[in-house]
Amino acid sequence: MDLLGEEAREAVRRALREDLSQGDVTSSGFIPEGSVCRAEISAKEEGVVCGLPVAQAVFGEVSCGDLRLELSCEEGDAIEAGTTVLSLSGPAAEVLAGERTALNFLQHLSGVASLTRAFVEAIDGTGVRLLDTRKTLPGLRSLEKYAVRCGGGSNHRFSLGDHVLLKDNHLALLKTAFPGSWAKEVGLRAERVRRLRPLARIEVEAQSLGEVAELRTLPLDLLLLDNMSLEELRRAVALIGGRMRLEASGGVTLERIRAIAETGVDFISVGALTHSAKAMDFSLRITA
Amino acid sequence: MDLLGEEAREAVRRALREDLSQGDVTSSGFIPEGSVCRAEISAKEEGVVCGLPVAQAVFGEVSCGDLRLELSCEEGDAIEAGTTVLSLSGPAAEVLAGERTALNFLQHLSGVASLTRAFVEAIDGTGVRLLDTRKTLPGLRSLEKYAVRCGGGSNHRFSLGDHVLLKDNHLALLKTAFPGSWAKEVGLRAERVRRLRPLARIEVEAQSLGEVAELRTLPLDLLLLDNMSLEELRRAVALIGGRMRLEASGGVTLERIRAIAETGVDFISVGALTHSAKAMDFSLRITA
Amino acid sequence: MDLLGEEAREAVRRALREDLSQGDVTSSGFIPEGSVCRAEISAKEEGVVCGLPVAQAVFGEVSCGDLRLELSCEEGDAIEAGTTVLSLSGPAAEVLAGERTALNFLQHLSGVASLTRAFVEAIDGTGVRLLDTRKTLPGLRSLEKYAVRCGGGSNHRFSLGDHVLLKDNHLALLKTAFPGSWAKEVGLRAERVRRLRPLARIEVEAQSLGEVAELRTLPLDLLLLDNMSLEELRRAVALIGGRMRLEASGGVTLERIRAIAETGVDFISVGALTHSAKAMDFSLRITA
Amino acid sequence: MDLLGEEAREAVRRALREDLSQGDVTSSGFIPEGSVCRAEISAKEEGVVCGLPVAQAVFGEVSCGDLRLELSCEEGDAIEAGTTVLSLSGPAAEVLAGERTALNFLQHLSGVASLTRAFVEAIDGTGVRLLDTRKTLPGLRSLEKYAVRCGGGSNHRFSLGDHVLLKDNHLALLKTAFPGSWAKEVGLRAERVRRLRPLARIEVEAQSLGEVAELRTLPLDLLLLDNMSLEELRRAVALIGGRMRLEASGGVTLERIRAIAETGVDFISVGALTHSAKAMDFSLRITA
Amino acid sequence: MDLLGEEAREAVRRALREDLSQGDVTSSGFIPEGSVCRAEISAKEEGVVCGLPVAQAVFGEVSCGDLRLELSCEEGDAIEAGTTVLSLSGPAAEVLAGERTALNFLQHLSGVASLTRAFVEAIDGTGVRLLDTRKTLPGLRSLEKYAVRCGGGSNHRFSLGDHVLLKDNHLALLKTAFPGSWAKEVGLRAERVRRLRPLARIEVEAQSLGEVAELRTLPLDLLLLDNMSLEELRRAVALIGGRMRLEASGGVTLERIRAIAETGVDFISVGALTHSAKAMDFSLRITA
Amino acid sequence: MDLLGEEAREAVRRALREDLSQGDVTSSGFIPEGSVCRAEISAKEEGVVCGLPVAQAVFGEVSCGDLRLELSCEEGDAIEAGTTVLSLSGPAAEVLAGERTALNFLQHLSGVASLTRAFVEAIDGTGVRLLDTRKTLPGLRSLEKYAVRCGGGSNHRFSLGDHVLLKDNHLALLKTAFPGSWAKEVGLRAERVRRLRPLARIEVEAQSLGEVAELRTLPLDLLLLDNMSLEELRRAVALIGGRMRLEASGGVTLERIRAIAETGVDFISVGALTHSAKAMDFSLRITA
Repeated sequence: MDLLGEEAREAVRRALREDLSQGDVTSSGFIPEGSVCRAEISAKEEGVVCGLPVAQAVFGEVSCGDLRLELSCEEGDAIEAGTTVLSLSGPAAEVLAGERTALNFLQHLSGVASLTRAFVEAIDGTGVRLLDTRKTLPGLRSLEKYAVRCGGGSNHRFSLGDHVLLKDNHLALLKTAFPGSWAKEVGLRAERVRRLRPLARIEVEAQSLGEVAELRTLPLDLLLLDNMSLEELRRAVALIGGRMRLEASGGVTLERIRAIAETGVDFISVGALTHSAKAMDFSLRITA
Repeated sequence: MDLLGEEAREAVRRALREDLSQGDVTSSGFIPEGSVCRAEISAKEEGVVCGLPVAQAVFGEVSCGDLRLELSCEEGDAIEAGTTVLSLSGPAAEVLAGERTALNFLQHLSGVASLTRAFVEAIDGTGVRLLDTRKTLPGLRSLEKYAVRCGGGSNHRFSLGDHVLLKDNHLALLKTAFPGSWAKEVGLRAERVRRLRPLARIEVEAQSLGEVAELRTLPLDLLLLDNMSLEELRRAVALIGGRMRLEASGGVTLERIRAIAETGVDFISVGALTHSAKAMDFSLRITA
Repeated sequence: MDLLGEEAREAVRRALREDLSQGDVTSSGFIPEGSVCRAEISAKEEGVVCGLPVAQAVFGEVSCGDLRLELSCEEGDAIEAGTTVLSLSGPAAEVLAGERTALNFLQHLSGVASLTRAFVEAIDGTGVRLLDTRKTLPGLRSLEKYAVRCGGGSNHRFSLGDHVLLKDNHLALLKTAFPGSWAKEVGLRAERVRRLRPLARIEVEAQSLGEVAELRTLPLDLLLLDNMSLEELRRAVALIGGRMRLEASGGVTLERIRAIAETGVDFISVGALTHSAKAMDFSLRITA
Repeated sequence: MDLLGEEAREAVRRALREDLSQGDVTSSGFIPEGSVCRAEISAKEEGVVCGLPVAQAVFGEVSCGDLRLELSCEEGDAIEAGTTVLSLSGPAAEVLAGERTALNFLQHLSGVASLTRAFVEAIDGTGVRLLDTRKTLPGLRSLEKYAVRCGGGSNHRFSLGDHVLLKDNHLALLKTAFPGSWAKEVGLRAERVRRLRPLARIEVEAQSLGEVAELRTLPLDLLLLDNMSLEELRRAVALIGGRMRLEASGGVTLERIRAIAETGVDFISVGALTHSAKAMDFSLRITA
Repeated sequence: MDLLGEEAREAVRRALREDLSQGDVTSSGFIPEGSVCRAEISAKEEGVVCGLPVAQAVFGEVSCGDLRLELSCEEGDAIEAGTTVLSLSGPAAEVLAGERTALNFLQHLSGVASLTRAFVEAIDGTGVRLLDTRKTLPGLRSLEKYAVRCGGGSNHRFSLGDHVLLKDNHLALLKTAFPGSWAKEVGLRAERVRRLRPLARIEVEAQSLGEVAELRTLPLDLLLLDNMSLEELRRAVALIGGRMRLEASGGVTLERIRAIAETGVDFISVGALTHSAKAMDFSLRITA
Repeated sequence: MDLLGEEAREAVRRALREDLSQGDVTSSGFIPEGSVCRAEISAKEEGVVCGLPVAQAVFGEVSCGDLRLELSCEEGDAIEAGTTVLSLSGPAAEVLAGERTALNFLQHLSGVASLTRAFVEAIDGTGVRLLDTRKTLPGLRSLEKYAVRCGGGSNHRFSLGDHVLLKDNHLALLKTAFPGSWAKEVGLRAERVRRLRPLARIEVEAQSLGEVAELRTLPLDLLLLDNMSLEELRRAVALIGGRMRLEASGGVTLERIRAIAETGVDFISVGALTHSAKAMDFSLRITA
């Protein structure tokens, strides 16, 4: 789907360094020199496969050139338990050197993609888009956000540097500094930031309908409705009347997400996609 | 508990680079210059806290020196929802620059420690030790293994270079190369490896009682019993009779782990501790 | 103005490594041991100062702790020739170790900021915003884009990963693949990208008024008008009628920019801001 | 001309990381999967081409192996506007991923080489050599000094560690410490440094003819004549009488350099070669 | 023998960066463009060859793909003076760019392997194993420990993180904190560490027979007998009676090691293997 | 003596990473929490101390700020066995975390400095300078060359990029390409290189008096006389007659060096200084 970025390549090298800094004491001591083999990586449960180019990059790094790889499905495919996703043939020591690292990427990224798919299907047909957050595992942000896209979700910002999101803590500071005029200050500063970074989106978090009312006339791209009830969400949608796009967040579960989507918001963001996805089980088996 | 290793420091710098490569467009555009504040990081659910020194290191990296941190609990403490774990006071822009990165470490490591603690408590009193695996999230292995220790679990090997573990794939290669004498070959090679790496432990995976019988007279430290029924585990324990330590793995759940522990094995390993731990929820709130 | 991001810190370490990998053979051989001094960094020509926090970071890296720094102006200030911007006092060997590296950052970033300011002043009052490009010096993108903001300019995208910009080469490929329906394909794909990356802006380059006409009904954020005459620009503004924002680029000089701005476009982008800025001259002088 | 050093390879990886950390959202969203193309990089103005091996390295890094490159001119060639320098054929996504980064290197290094060539031609036939300085852009020193050589110029020292250059600030410290005997101290220390680093050149800056007179009997390799008038330069040449080589610096322009060269100095150094070179314009065009 | 780990690959890149950061001024200035050659690396003295895969990796890094390498002996072979170990054919500039770096690895690692072999042969037939230490050259630990294995020696721990070794300084701290019960404290803490890190070995250093007596009933894997006389070693062996394995260290020379081995200890450790090995002389000669 | 360069700082971080990637399992398990101590690093044999600033940097990296260090001798001092060189006081866990790494630098660099001093003293009074080579341990070149200076020796070139040295292999290639005119070609190319890199020294290796005769009129800085007898060296000195400086190398021992020096050469280079220096023994002892 995407060309693998530089950040992904570094994650691959880093992971191999964790596992192989001092070589592979098992293979070097027990595998007959010159062994070659065929092997397959297969899913042990159903889900959405993600991370195949990363697994390929892992084996590319450990191989001296004689390892052949063949994909048998595509990124983002929904697969059954038992499906083979990647076949290998070549030096056994290289297959075994890359095995765990490749599986660790595959099981996590497919876990993220599969959880994303489940949430996306729960709001199917509503037109609402599922968003990820910056609540990612340290060092894996780009890859996790890629997995979210593979699962059919959408990416919120990638870092503190690409878009503006004023949250409760920022507003608390502004309310202290400008007690009676914080909302006006937000507007003034939003205009200044827009001049400097015209492509950046500007979003503000509202914690109550009162805040929604104060913010609705400002030049914002998005309003984040944090932890609101369904009724509050509906009233916020009405108050804003299309002036800016609305994102609901907080306490979003697979059970509750459809009801939230039906309140009329544009986006629903779920931190669990990246910070709490269960691994999807894969294994590598030598077949000959 | 442990002094923070170099690998952890690099994980911190890497995570900050993900979030702050291009600065913080929200703080630089909206926070009044020179703002100072007090803030608290608190748990939003109960669990075992882990990662406080990492969170301190995050703020240490983003701060120019005027940020004060105070811990109010210790690594490995079981805490209630609402407990404050770390208080901060200093430049608001620094608090906000480190917030998400610190929380991302804290929520993941505490998630791992909490899940570990739950498994440890389920086998309390049996004398069996809970082990982690190499099924860790890429780039986070040292930290996740530290979290397992904080949760009361034990660490299996850290990399392919520190101990030997012959798994089904290695045995398949040896069986192909030495059809009638694979177990004898394992023994010969184990002796050679022991000469070169006398501190390294040597463990072999058995997939059936037949393999247990073949392996029981070899000079091994551990035998891994993969995916066996409780009855098979009991019979393996009897077959081995204390000659080597036994590790059970495969399909271990919170419901089933106590019954496994009662079969008489020494260790039970659980990949989910590190690859499928749900984040423990923490938040940072500016209080003044 | 902005908090210094991680990318800037790495640029500082890298630059010091270029100059100091093998120590400073002049200071170690000729400066009396223990020498301390006062010194000043001053501008030798007028311009907009930019890079002071970077210069501070340079001296922070080379110092063992006894070097004191004091700023005497602020980032983005327009200063006269002769103005002192930073005073130092401490070990002479540290002042001299950081001198050239600090000046190299300062002279380049101030050069970018000064050139930006000149273009910004040329379109003062028109409401048009000046944009930078990705035509930056390798390894210095974040810092150069920061210097553009210091000079009063605005930032276009930071990388191939944050926003979409379809240029002539992309369109050539689409026209080859979908001869009769390329514009429709652009629209279909723009919708798909928007679902995956809803915060990303989507911009397309038009090389002629014909292309402007084809593109005007698509769901785009910006249209890039490349190398058009003033008359073409005016007609493009009329054709689009506010449906999307317009960026003019190509052949923009200080002489010509005001006329371009007066055609009614929203943005004018100038690669020269970052790839061809003349250094602003600064020097460091030991005063006591 | 030169084999590409390790520092250049790192500059390439760094530049790609700036542009591609999060992949290429335009290509991945808009380019038909599997597209292949032919493309050409051509100069849009006349000048001295420099950086072709760097551009090759950029495409080598982004390519998975199916991208073919063909050079059609050599490093250091003086070319006309319109000249194609590099042809590519292969996956369109790879061509587009490397395009901007390759051009950014090419336009800057060719800019440096072209400016150098202009200065070199201005002193053609005088036997005087044009030198660069350490006033380079942070992170690009080796490459810029390579470009200077491509343009026909000569390299002064690469870092604070390879040769000695005592400048006004060093002399100020020595004059303070040894008021009556600073020149003698320079001589004593020069001898000591020569013993430790016998290959290193030793150069001292003189700011006046008086200083020239004081320094002329010391065991130096070079004397730097800073900001002197033509008359002063001529008198310095006479005073030194071939005892050491002479370098003129300060305020050197294309207009003035020939007159300086004709004073009889050996070298003229120009910081602008590396800190103020205008980019030479190149573009990449997909041709099929 | 071993697959080359990631740490070794980084050592190779780092060494090349030391030598080639600014290219190769000799080859680029003096070698006729396009020169190809054949060359051989040969030993100039007898010894145990080690580091051939590292030398291959060096040439792999400097080559653009046209350099052919052929090994003519195997890692760990005892070779005569004059033996050719590696033949090369391809671009002369690549051969010369890698020459010194490849030889630097080869001469050091072969030096370590050869010294190890000498010590191993001195204790041949005693059943005692020769151990290395953490007294390694900074940045070369993994490679030096690999060379020890090539020479027939055994590896002690790789870092402070993989096994426990309580030395005199640790015991001094425990004796201060628990004056009358330090040995009991060691035992209690050993049990706790074993629960957390069940694969880690636990070793304690004894400086006298009195300490041996105090430690002999604790649950330790190894006892380090530091700087004891042969008589003390014999008595320590008797006191321990097989309860744990014994390592002798301190003042071990080629003359004295056999007598130490005959006292009945299990291991003898020698820091000199890695910190004081003389280089084994190799040279590269262009043959055609 | 020298300010510690960036390369040294990286060597320190790298060495700590080798030892502390996974923390210190001994200290964290056995040292009472909060222990503080005093400790001393002392020499266990006589020699020239070198590496104290590196040892300080090691403890600076592992310390959180409460470790105090005090030097009691200076770099390059000749010290007796038993001399304390560095005293520490602070957290015991930090002292122990840095101990081995600091000692590893100190023992190696002091070993190099001590061996250098021995050679320097052997030629005392002859006026000949002792040179090191590029036969350094991978990753330690800058530090080893610094140790050579501390021992009173002189540095030859640092890399393939700073000076020219044409050795037998380069000459073989030139002789093949220009059979009758190789020496003339050397001269032509030397002039071209001098134009591009006027500060670089140019040295050529002569393997026989015949080659000395062919090379003596070329514009070279140095001539390397490789593996010549004392008689040949004397005749080479006479042949050259001061036209260029002469370096003798090959088979230089402590016994033979004075005789070589007395032949009248200017420099003698010894690879063993860096590739075969025995460690000088130091230890760290906790004193309270």
